[in-house]
Amino acid sequence: MRVGYLQFDPIFAEVKRNLDRVAERLSRETCDLMVLPELFASGYQFVSETEVRALAEPVPDGPTTQRLVEIARERNMHLAAGLPERGTDGCYNSAVLVGPQGFIGLYRKTHLFFEETLWFRPGNTGFQVWDLGVAKVGLMVCFDWYYPESARTLALKGAEIICHPSNLVLPHCPDAMVTRSLENRVFAITANRIGTEARGGKPPMTFIGNSEVVTPRGKILQRAPRDREEAAVIEIDPAEAANKALNPYNDLLKDRRVELYNPS
Amino acid sequence: MRVGYLQFDPIFAEVKRNLDRVAERLSRETCDLMVLPELFASGYQFVSETEVRALAEPVPDGPTTQRLVEIARERNMHLAAGLPERGTDGCYNSAVLVGPQGFIGLYRKTHLFFEETLWFRPGNTGFQVWDLGVAKVGLMVCFDWYYPESARTLALKGAEIICHPSNLVLPHCPDAMVTRSLENRVFAITANRIGTEARGGKPPMTFIGNSEVVTPRGKILQRAPRDREEAAVIEIDPAEAANKALNPYNDLLKDRRVELYNPS
Repeated sequence: MRVGYLQFDPIFAEVKRNLDRVAERLSRETCDLMVLPELFASGYQFVSETEVRALAEPVPDGPTTQRLVEIARERNMHLAAGLPERGTDGCYNSAVLVGPQGFIGLYRKTHLFFEETLWFRPGNTGFQVWDLGVAKVGLMVCFDWYYPESARTLALKGAEIICHPSNLVLPHCPDAMVTRSLENRVFAITANRIGTEARGGKPPMTFIGNSEVVTPRGKILQRAPRDREEAAVIEIDPAEAANKALNPYNDLLKDRRVELYNPS
Repeated sequence: MRVGYLQFDPIFAEVKRNLDRVAERLSRETCDLMVLPELFASGYQFVSETEVRALAEPVPDGPTTQRLVEIARERNMHLAAGLPERGTDGCYNSAVLVGPQGFIGLYRKTHLFFEETLWFRPGNTGFQVWDLGVAKVGLMVCFDWYYPESARTLALKGAEIICHPSNLVLPHCPDAMVTRSLENRVFAITANRIGTEARGGKPPMTFIGNSEVVTPRGKILQRAPRDREEAAVIEIDPAEAANKALNPYNDLLKDRRVELYNPS
């Protein structure tokens, strides 16, 4: 199975330009699953709820999801990507999974970071896993990495690959995803953006790149630079994630001792 | 508050020699809390249950715990350290916490690794936190690091410092403890051993050293070499762990969304 990420620098609010850029870049890639950043076509640094509402789109009928479906069909690949979603009850920081057959699933970010809490509603879908045939795939978005419960829940639901659209500004996530992969024996694909946004007099946010593919044994197969666009595609075997035996005496998930964990 | 670790090379089954070595080394250190490795006075690579029973000791009346209490009293420090415990129903891979006033608490390793599952019973104490006045301290042992639920449970119970006696042979833990510290906003003190054991025709086990003190913001204050003894003492402020505000919009533990986590 061939998986990858596209790390690039979207321009805030220039949705069509950003979608065209992605389509052009992916026209040269062949893979089964490609992960794009969080809010990849809208940009990140909103300054008001009005602005969020203006850029948010219904899923799956909005232009971003439809364009992703079109690319997925043309390139015969699955895509996981983040976008501002206009729901019936407010806006969510969401991610969608699409494939050659069309729209597959929606995830609404569970753990909102910083000012996202002002513009977005906390996600209410929970962590979900979809069986693509070639692999079982789960979604989480950016700051969800900080909570071990996110990747753990996906692993317990059978995810072999965690797709992780991100807009990272803090330095710790790329190394932490090695821990997330190890502790759950899953592949993790983090797609981060690059570039800087400084809108409405707010302090500039510089995104740290370092998109990566990590194996269930914690090996970084590919890591992008901090400041350059990169599309990477790499061969993996999802069966590595299905086998949870660490050694003849330990099975990662069966050895959990739930009765001794604090549930609250 | 001054905390530290003692990384050294015990000799298997030479309990008195190992205790003397620790006492001699700590006679030169001044601190509030010192962490020693897992099974620090017995050695690690048991080859039979009979051997475990011969080296296991009751807690707190056995010689290892009593000697630790003596050192704690003489040096006016707290000590966290691992030992094979002889319980009424079998042997446990345990850790004790002692202080100048005597024995404080017992923890029995929750997640047994590899052949430990042949010699030891799975721990039944759960993860516990003791308030030493100067800081709230929790215990976990070695492979417990692999399960994010271990450190999370300690943090939810109020731990500001996680003491982590270890006998690490795999390479990932030292970096993973940065993630454990970040995701829980706690200090973590991992005390690992060095040296190699190869007993009863078994493959040799080489312990990786790299004992360390990590801050709630994921900074490695001190990390020991892989192959040399090191006693390190460093100043920390436990209040850094008590404050869980990541920024004005995020509080680490309050922002958990338990209803969306898979409990099983």
